[in-house]
Amino acid sequence: MLQHYPAEHEFNGPVIACIQMEPHVGAKRDNVTRSIRHIETAAKNGASLVILPELANTGYVFVDRDEAFSLAEELPDGQTARIFAEMARRLGIHIVAGIAERAGTRLYNSAIFTGPSGHIGVYRKLHLWNNERLFFEPGDFGIPVFDTSVGRIAIVICYDGWFPETYRLAAMQGADIVCVPTNWVPMSSQPDDRPAMATTLTMAAAHSNGMAIACANRIGTERGQPFIGQSVIVGGDGWPITGPASGDREEILYASIDLKRTRSSRALNALNHVLHDRRADVYDPMLGTGWPSSHS
Amino acid sequence: MLQHYPAEHEFNGPVIACIQMEPHVGAKRDNVTRSIRHIETAAKNGASLVILPELANTGYVFVDRDEAFSLAEELPDGQTARIFAEMARRLGIHIVAGIAERAGTRLYNSAIFTGPSGHIGVYRKLHLWNNERLFFEPGDFGIPVFDTSVGRIAIVICYDGWFPETYRLAAMQGADIVCVPTNWVPMSSQPDDRPAMATTLTMAAAHSNGMAIACANRIGTERGQPFIGQSVIVGGDGWPITGPASGDREEILYASIDLKRTRSSRALNALNHVLHDRRADVYDPMLGTGWPSSHS
Repeated sequence: MLQHYPAEHEFNGPVIACIQMEPHVGAKRDNVTRSIRHIETAAKNGASLVILPELANTGYVFVDRDEAFSLAEELPDGQTARIFAEMARRLGIHIVAGIAERAGTRLYNSAIFTGPSGHIGVYRKLHLWNNERLFFEPGDFGIPVFDTSVGRIAIVICYDGWFPETYRLAAMQGADIVCVPTNWVPMSSQPDDRPAMATTLTMAAAHSNGMAIACANRIGTERGQPFIGQSVIVGGDGWPITGPASGDREEILYASIDLKRTRSSRALNALNHVLHDRRADVYDPMLGTGWPSSHS
Repeated sequence: MLQHYPAEHEFNGPVIACIQMEPHVGAKRDNVTRSIRHIETAAKNGASLVILPELANTGYVFVDRDEAFSLAEELPDGQTARIFAEMARRLGIHIVAGIAERAGTRLYNSAIFTGPSGHIGVYRKLHLWNNERLFFEPGDFGIPVFDTSVGRIAIVICYDGWFPETYRLAAMQGADIVCVPTNWVPMSSQPDDRPAMATTLTMAAAHSNGMAIACANRIGTERGQPFIGQSVIVGGDGWPITGPASGDREEILYASIDLKRTRSSRALNALNHVLHDRRADVYDPMLGTGWPSSHS
């Protein structure tokens, strides 16, 4: 993967930028204009992998399916995706951005991934949160891992991160970095004086898989729904490199990821490795054997 | 499960006691004597489910396999297990305790589970940490969940908790409470000024499975190996109820678990449930399909 880089340019890994911003539902032109400005700032500051929040161009709290549908775009050829693809080419960077996707009559809560050489892929959110179920179809592209010049990249959107399986299946396909466009909201059980549970879930997933995880959340309140900011970039050892960010300000978080070091974090000592030590012989026969999904 | 309790005695769930103590390797008689004293204290204070650390009766840092073998016992009929079983009967409580198990010529890093009506089960640690691999066989009893009068109980030992699959498979079998006898050691990446990564992993597992998790760690330094204490009891919402405890003192942590409330924590809102929302249709075909266990 690193063979594209001549030996004289030592490449350790990308500089990630997580753009924490406040989209406004329906104000697509303005959301995209401000995204462009943030991406340009990030690129100027040396970022080679820029992550925007979930549904960054449309906003989140749709009144009904019609509103969501009218704001959604075909991927990868919709207007917003083309703008970001052009920017990625021009700036020589990779961009991950949450976009409402229209595919025929279906809607998906998706993210595009685009790079210096053009479109790379689309991820469709697997686990839909709350009213998203009224508008979107559950994702049907699995958990793709894209092998790029900035590392092996997976994408996870917001509530997907509540499912350890998501991160594990990315890790098992060799992901180095998971990009998380998100719209985290307050959880009812969250104490005011603690870091967000989302931070805890992200740190645990990074540590137990030896992957860097970069989460770009939105801020602001939309139609009564607050969002919590606190974007964070966590290293493969599970500890935050940068963030959590504030809960209420537009910010760009930067972190330099050393891919070799990230990969080596999977080995906890000479005898233990978070992926090699999996007891697939135990887990696999226990999955998909007709057990009830829950007793409660 | 609750039908054993007459309606006039409302039973919401057990009072858990995690015994944070310092076993000394080889000093089995003394370790058991002190365990007895701690269990009696816990029972006197109202505990109905008492958890001792991993390898509580033998200590942890064996010089060689011979030493481990000489300290190990047959289960459930070895001397230590019989003493704890007799205590559970006499005090009318449940006890989970880490014990080195000898089965013929094989050794396991095990835990016994015993209650007011006698022996309930044995768990054998699935994921062996570091030099344990030189002494113990990997567990071969899967991840059993025991349906008891104090709830549906699973057991996880120390490094097992680094594998989200362990907790997930307990939850999918309906576990309410996971008892974790442990011997957590310092991780090389752990910053001094942060709660232990073990706390983060425990909180994430509790939250994303809606289970209470009670971890009883040891303290002290044994043959140069320090242990970190910080025992903790986490609720089904992922937040600590009690602890983390100190890093260096013998302590008993107590927490009252409401089983109904624990089960209801699996529903995050009217539309989302951490187990029902699993995308088994995506995960299952991605597991056991011959993928390499790791790219690194």
